[in-house]
Amino acid sequence: MLLLKHCKSLTRVGPLKTLRHLRVAPPTSLGAVHLWRSNSEEQRSQRVHNPSWKHGLAGLLAGAGAVLAYGLYHSKAEQAATITVQTVGKESHLPIFTQEEVSKHRSMEDGVWVTYKGSVYDITQFVAMHPGGDKILLAAGGALEPFWALYAVHSQDHVLDILSEYKVGELSAEDQQRQQAVEPSDPYSSDPDRHPVLRINSLKPFNAETPPELLSDNYITPSAIFFKRNHLPVPHVDPALYRLHVDGLPGGILTLSLDDLKTQFPKHTITVTLQCAGNRRSEMNEVKQVKGLNWGIAAISNATWAGARLRDVLLAAGYRPDMAQWAHHVQFEGLDKDVTGTTYGASIPLNKAVSEEGDVLLAYEMNGEDLPADHGYPVRVIVPGTVGARNVKWLGKIIVSADESSSHWQQNDYKGFSPGTDWDTVDFKSAPAIQELPVQSAITQPTGGSTVDRSSEEVTVKGYAWSGGGREVVRVDVSLDGGKTWQVAQLRSSDKEQTPTPSPPPGQAWAWKLWELTAPIPAEAQELEIVCKAVDNSYNTQPDSVAPIWNLRGVLSNAWHRVKVKVREDE
Amino acid sequence: MLLLKHCKSLTRVGPLKTLRHLRVAPPTSLGAVHLWRSNSEEQRSQRVHNPSWKHGLAGLLAGAGAVLAYGLYHSKAEQAATITVQTVGKESHLPIFTQEEVSKHRSMEDGVWVTYKGSVYDITQFVAMHPGGDKILLAAGGALEPFWALYAVHSQDHVLDILSEYKVGELSAEDQQRQQAVEPSDPYSSDPDRHPVLRINSLKPFNAETPPELLSDNYITPSAIFFKRNHLPVPHVDPALYRLHVDGLPGGILTLSLDDLKTQFPKHTITVTLQCAGNRRSEMNEVKQVKGLNWGIAAISNATWAGARLRDVLLAAGYRPDMAQWAHHVQFEGLDKDVTGTTYGASIPLNKAVSEEGDVLLAYEMNGEDLPADHGYPVRVIVPGTVGARNVKWLGKIIVSADESSSHWQQNDYKGFSPGTDWDTVDFKSAPAIQELPVQSAITQPTGGSTVDRSSEEVTVKGYAWSGGGREVVRVDVSLDGGKTWQVAQLRSSDKEQTPTPSPPPGQAWAWKLWELTAPIPAEAQELEIVCKAVDNSYNTQPDSVAPIWNLRGVLSNAWHRVKVKVREDE
Repeated sequence: MLLLKHCKSLTRVGPLKTLRHLRVAPPTSLGAVHLWRSNSEEQRSQRVHNPSWKHGLAGLLAGAGAVLAYGLYHSKAEQAATITVQTVGKESHLPIFTQEEVSKHRSMEDGVWVTYKGSVYDITQFVAMHPGGDKILLAAGGALEPFWALYAVHSQDHVLDILSEYKVGELSAEDQQRQQAVEPSDPYSSDPDRHPVLRINSLKPFNAETPPELLSDNYITPSAIFFKRNHLPVPHVDPALYRLHVDGLPGGILTLSLDDLKTQFPKHTITVTLQCAGNRRSEMNEVKQVKGLNWGIAAISNATWAGARLRDVLLAAGYRPDMAQWAHHVQFEGLDKDVTGTTYGASIPLNKAVSEEGDVLLAYEMNGEDLPADHGYPVRVIVPGTVGARNVKWLGKIIVSADESSSHWQQNDYKGFSPGTDWDTVDFKSAPAIQELPVQSAITQPTGGSTVDRSSEEVTVKGYAWSGGGREVVRVDVSLDGGKTWQVAQLRSSDKEQTPTPSPPPGQAWAWKLWELTAPIPAEAQELEIVCKAVDNSYNTQPDSVAPIWNLRGVLSNAWHRVKVKVREDE
Repeated sequence: MLLLKHCKSLTRVGPLKTLRHLRVAPPTSLGAVHLWRSNSEEQRSQRVHNPSWKHGLAGLLAGAGAVLAYGLYHSKAEQAATITVQTVGKESHLPIFTQEEVSKHRSMEDGVWVTYKGSVYDITQFVAMHPGGDKILLAAGGALEPFWALYAVHSQDHVLDILSEYKVGELSAEDQQRQQAVEPSDPYSSDPDRHPVLRINSLKPFNAETPPELLSDNYITPSAIFFKRNHLPVPHVDPALYRLHVDGLPGGILTLSLDDLKTQFPKHTITVTLQCAGNRRSEMNEVKQVKGLNWGIAAISNATWAGARLRDVLLAAGYRPDMAQWAHHVQFEGLDKDVTGTTYGASIPLNKAVSEEGDVLLAYEMNGEDLPADHGYPVRVIVPGTVGARNVKWLGKIIVSADESSSHWQQNDYKGFSPGTDWDTVDFKSAPAIQELPVQSAITQPTGGSTVDRSSEEVTVKGYAWSGGGREVVRVDVSLDGGKTWQVAQLRSSDKEQTPTPSPPPGQAWAWKLWELTAPIPAEAQELEIVCKAVDNSYNTQPDSVAPIWNLRGVLSNAWHRVKVKVREDE
C-alpha cells in the first residue's frame, strides 16, 4: 500500500527522476519480477520492509512502471491483480546498440526500432497491430517516452507486456544519459486547475466526468463540472494574438481575430448537449475488455453556448452553394498539438456546416462567460447533435474540403463496428466516422448498490435522455422489474423552478431532457432492477442489452441503463 | 371446411344477401351458439350434414358473421378457435324500436344508438373506448353497415362480441326492410385488379404485401407487387379534369392541372423506400393482441418516383422563408373519401416540405410509368424517409398551415406509445405523429420453418435494411445462433447485375439496402435461429426484442428479426 501510494504521488509531482536513475542501471538477471496489487497488506509489507537488494530494486522498477498506469487508470484497480514485468531479466545477454544504430530503423523496409527506458525494441511486426495506427511510425528510430508522455493510454501493464516481446537489445549507457538530458518537460504541467468533484478517468490528457447525481441536478451543467475530454495538453492562447484561419475556398484564406469573430458576425446562442462517443464505455468493458477511457454514465453534459455561426463565417470567406459539388466536408484543426506538431483534428459534413438549421457555432462563450481553458478558450466549434469529438476546441483552422479530416481521430478512431469485429480483423475504412449519435438515456438516481426503504413506499428515479441529429426525446420508459413492465417518466427541458423551454423546431432539439418518475415500491420486491430507455421523435429506441452492440473501441454504448437497488424492509 | 370456404367466397362475390334475409328473421331463443373452427373435419361435417333446423340457421348466421373476419383476416386462423355468437338468443325479449326512435340518440347527452343487421345497440359507454376515436359518432342514430363497409377492420369476431354487449333491442321489421332497400352499393366495387401473388391482409380497403422472397429479388420493387396500403376505396380520377389546389398562403389558392405540374416544374426523379408504420405488426400480435392489419415483414417496398418538387410548387404558390414564423406544417388531402365525404389526410413538418434536401415530391410517375391506380394516380406525395401514411395518394389539396392535419390518421392513429399504455389509458395527444421511421431490417430468405441441408455446408441469408430520415444503413449484423455471435452482411444498393448506386449525400439516403450473407452452417447445430439487425449512419440500431416496444396500435415494430430453420443432417 505504501509503495503504491507513494509512487503514485511521485509520478505526479516529479521525483520520478530518482527512480529513473535506478531504472537505467544495466540490465540485471533478476528474471521476471512480480508485483502483487492484491489487498493483502502482508504481502506488500514483506516486499517493502524486507527487501533484499534485488527485490528492492525490482520492486521499485516494477512500481515505477506500474504506477503510471495506476495513477492514470486507478479506476481499473480491480483488474489485473498480478503484474508481470518482464523487461528486467530474460534479455540479459542481448546486444547493446547506439542511438545512431537505432536511428537507422525508421521504416517498414529498414525495420522499425524504438527505445524505451534504456532498452531497444524492434516493433516492425507490431506496426500493423497498433491500435493507434500508423502514428506509431512517428517514434521510429527514437524514444517512446515523449509520445507516451502525451498519450498516457500507453501506460498500462498490457502495453509494457506487449513491448517486452519485441526487445532486441539495450541502448548504450552514453545514449541513455543523453536521452535523459533532453527528456521533455511534462507537457501537461500548465493544464488548468479543475474542480475537485470531477471523477478523473485520465490525468494526462485530462479526462473526467461529472458525478451522476450532479448531472441531473442541473438542467444547464455548470462549466466547472461539465465533463472534460481532452486528447492533448491544454494549449495556452493569448486572446490578443489569436487568429482563426478559414481555408479551402477559392477566395484564399480568411483570417479572423477573436474580436473580428465577436463583432463582425451576429452572436447566436443555443443550448447544446455534448456527449463523448465513449460515454458508458465501462458497461462494454463488463462484457469484454475494450480500448479507451473507462467512462461511466456521465461523459455527457449540457451548456448554453454563444458565438458566430459557422455558416456565416463560411459565407464571409467566400463559400457559395454551388461549391457543394466538390466540397463535402469542413475540417477543423485545434491548437492542441502532440510532440510532432500534429494538431487535434476532425471534420463534419459540409451540409451540416452550411445549413441554416444545422446551428453549428464557432463558440466563444459557455454559460454566459468566456470559454474555460478546458473547453477550448478562446474559440471552439459546437456541432449540435454530433459526437463530442467533432466539437474541436482551441480552434485554429477551418478547411473546406472534398475530403474528411485525415486525422487519426477521424480515420482510425470514433467509428462503430460489429461485435464480431476485433483488433485482428478491423478495417477502419469499412465504417463511417461517427457524426450524429444514437438515442441515449441513463439513470442518475438512485445509484447502483444503494438502498431504498420499504417504509418510504415510493421510489424516485431520475436521469437524462438525449438523441443525436437534433431528434427530440419524446418519451422515457422506466421499469422497476428489469424490463418486464414499464411506466412513462416525466420529462423536463429546464430547471424545475424555471419556465419550461418551448419545444424546438423539428430536427433542432440539441439539448437533453431530464426525467423523473416517482412510483410505488413493488410489494414483495427485495431488490429493484431499475431500467430506463428513451425514444426520440424518429421513434428510434435504445437496444435492450450491451453485448450485441459491443465494439472494440467501446463507443456508442447506449443499451438500456440498468441499476440494481436493495429494498430495506421495515424493522 | 366446406362451410367456411364457401362462405368466404360468398362474402366476396355477393350472395351474402341471401344470408341477410335469414338473419333478419325475428329473434329466436336458440341461446348462444358456437361455431368451432377447429381442424376436426368430423365436427364440421356433423354441423353441415346433420342440421336440425335450429342448428342450421345458427350455423349459417354464425358462419356469415364469422366469415367476413375470416375472409379479411385469414392469417389469424390460429387464433380464437371458438367463436361465440351471442346475438341470437339471450335478448329474445328485448323491445322493438323504430328508426325514428333510434335517430333521437345521436349524442353523448341523448345516448349514442346504432343499428346493425336488424338489432339496436346503445353504445354510449363504448364511445370513449373506440379505437377509431370520435369517428364512431358519425354513425350515431343510424346504421353501422355503410361505415363498416368502408372500414372492414370491424368485421372481426371480437368486434361483434363487443357490440353484442350493448344490444338494447330490435329494429322494427318495417325499418329493417327500408334499410335493406337503401343499402349502399359496395364502395370498393371499382377498385382495380391486383396481382395475384400479393398476400392480402384486407380486401376492403385493399391492403396487401409482397411475398418476402420477391422483395429481396428486386432492388426496385415492380409496381404490381409493391405493397398496397389503402385506407378507403380507390378514387377514379379523370386526368383531364384533375386539379391540385395549394392553399394557406397569402397569395390565395393556386390551382394546377396535371399538365401544369408536368410542364411548369422541373421533373425530379428519386428512388425512395416506403414502409407502412404497421410493417411487422404480426410480431407484436404474438406478444399481445394489437389493433390493426396483421402485416408480416413485407409492408415495405422500394420504387423510383418522378414528379415536381413540393418545394418548387410551394414557392410558385407564394411561399417565402419568412412564413416559417407562423407556418409549421404542410397538410395533404387525398381524393379518397369515406361515406361522410371526409377525405384521407395527413401532414408533414414545413421544414421537411420546403427544404432543398428534403426531396419531397408531387409524384406522377412510379418506376417510369404513370402512377398505378393503387398508388395514387394521377398524383401522390412522396415524403422520403417518412412513414408511408404521410405519402398521401390521389392528392387533391395542399394546405400550408400553423397546425398539423386534423385527420384521424394524424391525430389518433400512427403514433407510438409505451408498452405500459393500453386503450384504457392512452392519450393520443401525448405522443407525436410518426414522421421519420426508426432503423429497420428483416430476413427475407430463408423463411421461418424451412430446412437447410447439412450437406450444402453453407447457408445464404438475405434481407432488406432501411432507416428513416435519410439515414443510410451502414451495416447489417447477422447471427445464426440467436444473437450470441455476429457476422457482417454484404450490402448492395442496386440489382446484382447493375452498377452500384453511388452513396447519397448525408441525410438523403432514401432507399433501402438489400443484404446477403453466406456462412458455414455451424457444426452440431440442429436448428439455426437466424437474426438480423441493422445500424444506420447515426449509429442507431434495432432493439433486441419485441415486448419492450410493444404498443397498442402495433406500429414501429423494428426489433431484431428472427427466423428459425432446421438443419437436415445427411442421410
